[in-house]
Amino acid sequence: MAGLIDPDLLFPGDERTRAVARNLYTEVKGLPIVSPHGHTEPRWYALDEPFPDPAQLLIVPDHYVFRMLFSQGVRLEDLGVPTLDGSPVETDGRTIWRRFCENYHLFRGTPTRLWFDYTLSNLFGVDELPSAGNSDRLYDRIGECLARPDYRPRALYERFNIEVISTTDGALDPLAWHAKIRDSGWKGRVVPAYRPDAVVDPDFEGFSANLDRLGEITGADTGSWSGYLDAHRARRAYFKEFGATSSDHGHATADTANLAKAEAAALFDKVRSGKADASERRLFRAQMLTEMAKMSLDDGLVLQIHPGSFRNHAPAVMAKFGRDKGFDIPTRTDYVTALKPLLDAVGLERDLTVILFTLDETSYARELAPLAGVYPALKLGPAWWFHDSPEGMRRFREMTTETAGFYNTVGFNDDTRAFPSIPARHDIARRVDCAFLARLVAEHRLREDEAYELARELAYGLAKKAYKL
Amino acid sequence: MAGLIDPDLLFPGDERTRAVARNLYTEVKGLPIVSPHGHTEPRWYALDEPFPDPAQLLIVPDHYVFRMLFSQGVRLEDLGVPTLDGSPVETDGRTIWRRFCENYHLFRGTPTRLWFDYTLSNLFGVDELPSAGNSDRLYDRIGECLARPDYRPRALYERFNIEVISTTDGALDPLAWHAKIRDSGWKGRVVPAYRPDAVVDPDFEGFSANLDRLGEITGADTGSWSGYLDAHRARRAYFKEFGATSSDHGHATADTANLAKAEAAALFDKVRSGKADASERRLFRAQMLTEMAKMSLDDGLVLQIHPGSFRNHAPAVMAKFGRDKGFDIPTRTDYVTALKPLLDAVGLERDLTVILFTLDETSYARELAPLAGVYPALKLGPAWWFHDSPEGMRRFREMTTETAGFYNTVGFNDDTRAFPSIPARHDIARRVDCAFLARLVAEHRLREDEAYELARELAYGLAKKAYKL
Amino acid sequence: MAGLIDPDLLFPGDERTRAVARNLYTEVKGLPIVSPHGHTEPRWYALDEPFPDPAQLLIVPDHYVFRMLFSQGVRLEDLGVPTLDGSPVETDGRTIWRRFCENYHLFRGTPTRLWFDYTLSNLFGVDELPSAGNSDRLYDRIGECLARPDYRPRALYERFNIEVISTTDGALDPLAWHAKIRDSGWKGRVVPAYRPDAVVDPDFEGFSANLDRLGEITGADTGSWSGYLDAHRARRAYFKEFGATSSDHGHATADTANLAKAEAAALFDKVRSGKADASERRLFRAQMLTEMAKMSLDDGLVLQIHPGSFRNHAPAVMAKFGRDKGFDIPTRTDYVTALKPLLDAVGLERDLTVILFTLDETSYARELAPLAGVYPALKLGPAWWFHDSPEGMRRFREMTTETAGFYNTVGFNDDTRAFPSIPARHDIARRVDCAFLARLVAEHRLREDEAYELARELAYGLAKKAYKL
Repeated sequence: MAGLIDPDLLFPGDERTRAVARNLYTEVKGLPIVSPHGHTEPRWYALDEPFPDPAQLLIVPDHYVFRMLFSQGVRLEDLGVPTLDGSPVETDGRTIWRRFCENYHLFRGTPTRLWFDYTLSNLFGVDELPSAGNSDRLYDRIGECLARPDYRPRALYERFNIEVISTTDGALDPLAWHAKIRDSGWKGRVVPAYRPDAVVDPDFEGFSANLDRLGEITGADTGSWSGYLDAHRARRAYFKEFGATSSDHGHATADTANLAKAEAAALFDKVRSGKADASERRLFRAQMLTEMAKMSLDDGLVLQIHPGSFRNHAPAVMAKFGRDKGFDIPTRTDYVTALKPLLDAVGLERDLTVILFTLDETSYARELAPLAGVYPALKLGPAWWFHDSPEGMRRFREMTTETAGFYNTVGFNDDTRAFPSIPARHDIARRVDCAFLARLVAEHRLREDEAYELARELAYGLAKKAYKL
Repeated sequence: MAGLIDPDLLFPGDERTRAVARNLYTEVKGLPIVSPHGHTEPRWYALDEPFPDPAQLLIVPDHYVFRMLFSQGVRLEDLGVPTLDGSPVETDGRTIWRRFCENYHLFRGTPTRLWFDYTLSNLFGVDELPSAGNSDRLYDRIGECLARPDYRPRALYERFNIEVISTTDGALDPLAWHAKIRDSGWKGRVVPAYRPDAVVDPDFEGFSANLDRLGEITGADTGSWSGYLDAHRARRAYFKEFGATSSDHGHATADTANLAKAEAAALFDKVRSGKADASERRLFRAQMLTEMAKMSLDDGLVLQIHPGSFRNHAPAVMAKFGRDKGFDIPTRTDYVTALKPLLDAVGLERDLTVILFTLDETSYARELAPLAGVYPALKLGPAWWFHDSPEGMRRFREMTTETAGFYNTVGFNDDTRAFPSIPARHDIARRVDCAFLARLVAEHRLREDEAYELARELAYGLAKKAYKL
Repeated sequence: MAGLIDPDLLFPGDERTRAVARNLYTEVKGLPIVSPHGHTEPRWYALDEPFPDPAQLLIVPDHYVFRMLFSQGVRLEDLGVPTLDGSPVETDGRTIWRRFCENYHLFRGTPTRLWFDYTLSNLFGVDELPSAGNSDRLYDRIGECLARPDYRPRALYERFNIEVISTTDGALDPLAWHAKIRDSGWKGRVVPAYRPDAVVDPDFEGFSANLDRLGEITGADTGSWSGYLDAHRARRAYFKEFGATSSDHGHATADTANLAKAEAAALFDKVRSGKADASERRLFRAQMLTEMAKMSLDDGLVLQIHPGSFRNHAPAVMAKFGRDKGFDIPTRTDYVTALKPLLDAVGLERDLTVILFTLDETSYARELAPLAGVYPALKLGPAWWFHDSPEGMRRFREMTTETAGFYNTVGFNDDTRAFPSIPARHDIARRVDCAFLARLVAEHRLREDEAYELARELAYGLAKKAYKL
């Protein structure tokens, strides 16, 4: 590794533990990347065109980056974040990049800093911290790299040693890019995941039109409950044709419901007519998680639940810049009562996999580990989003392992749209897990040979198995 | 110690801190065991018969064990867990044991693993990790041990260096086994604890009949509020005759109430008639915690409150196998407002001891330590159940000590029905506390002589004192 | 430093990290103290009289001290805490001091212990732990010191190397002591902070009379909403004349509101008439936080929100001894929805500074860091009150840094009325921050030169900048 990343990055300070961590890491650092959940664009792999300029690639789309800069007074317009109404924003990549570099100190202690250090160092051969002084030089260097054939998406996929990567795709998505990838003969494995929020959440923009469209695509009658469910089945089957092994659900809460069929049908009618009130719309979302779980029992898709984000907290930012602009704030999330209807229905099934994520770390030891530590259908997703960080991942292991063990967890998700950072994210997760295992070994809670086996599982094996990849 | 347990188990990796931990531990590892709260069966000590086969002793009754195996797809029937309707389950101990051994890797990183390693190593002389390969050999070895006189309950009690152990006994229990122990002339000290859930919780199965029975046993009129309270007083006195020093209360929440006498009497009448609604039944439970605290002021029994478990979360498992089958899930628990009625009534009493437990670690620093750090009547019970683990115990100390100090805590509870694991549990608690104290010493926050004194208090003195044993 | 404080106090056990911590600390230990939030009395600096006897200075007013002693059965009367009705309490300082010394072991592991050790050692030259045996000797020694000119308030201010200190002052306070300090020619900088709880909280004792008084002082018509707001503006301007740069608000929750002007005026009328119900009174407090934020936009005062304390939890103690007697207990506190009205109004303002504090650590990673990591107006106050402790400060950094970074935090607040302990508190904060930074360096997450820069910011620079001091 180059200058910005020390070989001992993230390993504990004491020599006894560090030595174990170093040994464990040596065994796993070269394993292929399995990326079972993320947000890269299938278009990239399909077209295999050069990435845009450094700012458009690394700054403008990265909410971790622009939210921090915004919090310290940098305007989103000045970072090139596009406005909904098309009012002008900074378009000069070099200028945007400079604003980032001169504020690089703001990221000290954050995972963004580590991801950038790693990426600059390992992908672009940069060995100095970004600053106002070297901003232009770095911009040029990265730009030159991006213009080269070996920095195109497929080349990077291969260089990153990715074995398989999942995108996340709306239920209405025709998967045209996935088709193009499949038909291209390229041997990279890019699979979709079924994300039906737009046709499951009555509060989603254009919900009614979305259901009309769902009917058109599938030929099912999305004016009736049974037709609507058939449409989901059809889409899930379609996604599976392209290699999908999972669905993903981003509800505000973990609420589930398990209504009798007639009740569910009546609720659907009300929701479909647009007359459902807030509690009915909430109940519908809850019911749909259970319906999806039941479909999973039939078609084998792994069900992912990502609850607990208060989306678009600042209406002024939402109005000007739209969704996903850094104003998604975690909230307290209950699982014990919320999941009960789903668990009563299918929680004891041994052939079902429901992967739970949380933005509320208080649920790790109190709720999630005890639930995953007994229900065969449940597994714990890795530390997510704000908690996808060294301290966050450490807390995840410290607060879940003793009750759920390692084998009720599912390895790492990079969950990113920042393609160049994927190796950094997996590397950091591997290092943190090796450091955790090393502590168990150093404290004689685990034998070193067991730790080797676990390190491989956490880095590679569990993700493949849990996601059936 | 034998091969599975390193002498430095659970001591921190850095040499400076480890050396202090080692020294502290040397001072306390041999102290007698005071076990003020647990669930071993008095029958064992009374009859002093050999324990059953290894599986029936170590696997079938241990919810930590079978919940983990179940979570990974092993059926409870296949682990010999008895069904309520008597439908057949695995009865061959050797087969059950093998299922456990071949899945021993699932317990990596859990306290169950440590308890087993310790017990296998120190009690049965096993020095290899259980596996499919050695399952039969281990089964035979343990079986041979259990057949020997020096592995009978009283011999183990003595070998374990237990000074006193408390069982937990229903209010209606005649304490016949305790009587037999007392009359046997054996010098082991086994005391009961008064657990009146079945006659305090209107939702308990058979509540009304239980109250009838309570009246018969005590001669009190359990059809009236004052008679009902008298009956409790009589039973508490009876328990005290057998050495009881505490009562224990397993409510779903920490809610307390302090109604005027007439209100309480009217509430009792409604509850007794079976006409109380859910909120009245909840209020009755809340009121009874305060009544018990008031009785404690008179008779000196230490009051233990164990709130926050959502019991029997999976109805299908409850229907087939009954209570306590691993489906008890912690929930968010409030103490600040919930305990206020009780505290307003008796919280300032210096002769009362109310010991609080929690399954919600978020309450440690925010609620429990501040409450116990000012109310004379309150003390903090140790890290409980899912948190009775190295990380859990460490978090308990880190989050309570700075506000409540050490002297508002009460030492360790093993809280177990797994008799052979008792030395393991106390040993691990002692090690974790020594490691915590060692960190304070290494960071110069505490002097080494003070740490020695504290290590003894945490291992032995505080439990004796708090529980008046 | 003298005998009770090791030079390596609070530095991690492993040599690699400790060495870095030591180096960082060397750079910051001598920096001046900026104390932007606290509760020392301006009278002290104005009159510059000798402090009272050791017990009246160090024990009687310190709720950390007497709450711990009370929790272990020492009566408040016996510690000299004055009663509201004047019923007699211990007045002999030597006796009170002895009660403290003979119970010094109770404070093991608490920050109070560290603050005392530091103060005894560095201020009074004591190099032995207080005990029954040396109580009188220590009392005499401290008493002799306090009688000397170089232990008077201004001399200590200078010896402590305080650059500026803020007191906290009620809105109705004439700031006469501040005037006296200003007019004295002394070059110490003691500034007030605007704390309007008594004229903002309808539940405050004497609220109506307080508003009358507010009108008298300002000449504004506090019978009308606009006049009431004008009165606040006038008082804020008056406080600014004496150097105030901040306001402070101690509400029970973080609730905010942003009513239309007519609604707010109507609410004020109802509150002013004394006819507002509990929810209206709560709404008024919520509205006033937003009003204060809007005034801050005009006059530049930094807004501090200190929510989440259940005050005076024990009514019997409140009745006998009054407020602030150790019975303030943290409660669960929501920020994400509570702050939204205020944030919708002014959260995106780059010229506004709202500093958030919490007693609920679960909000650090889940709510506060994500909010402060994106809203330009928000900053995070340091670990507060029960969490102003080594473990508490460490958790604060571990749970906020990865999402909010360092630069959305504001350095340290000593928040104390215990003047002699101010150097101890700042020293401990500096040590804990250096230890945290050292870990990042040892784990190669930060370069050492960056850590030096950050150590200075955390110890000195950020507080000056955030509070405009």
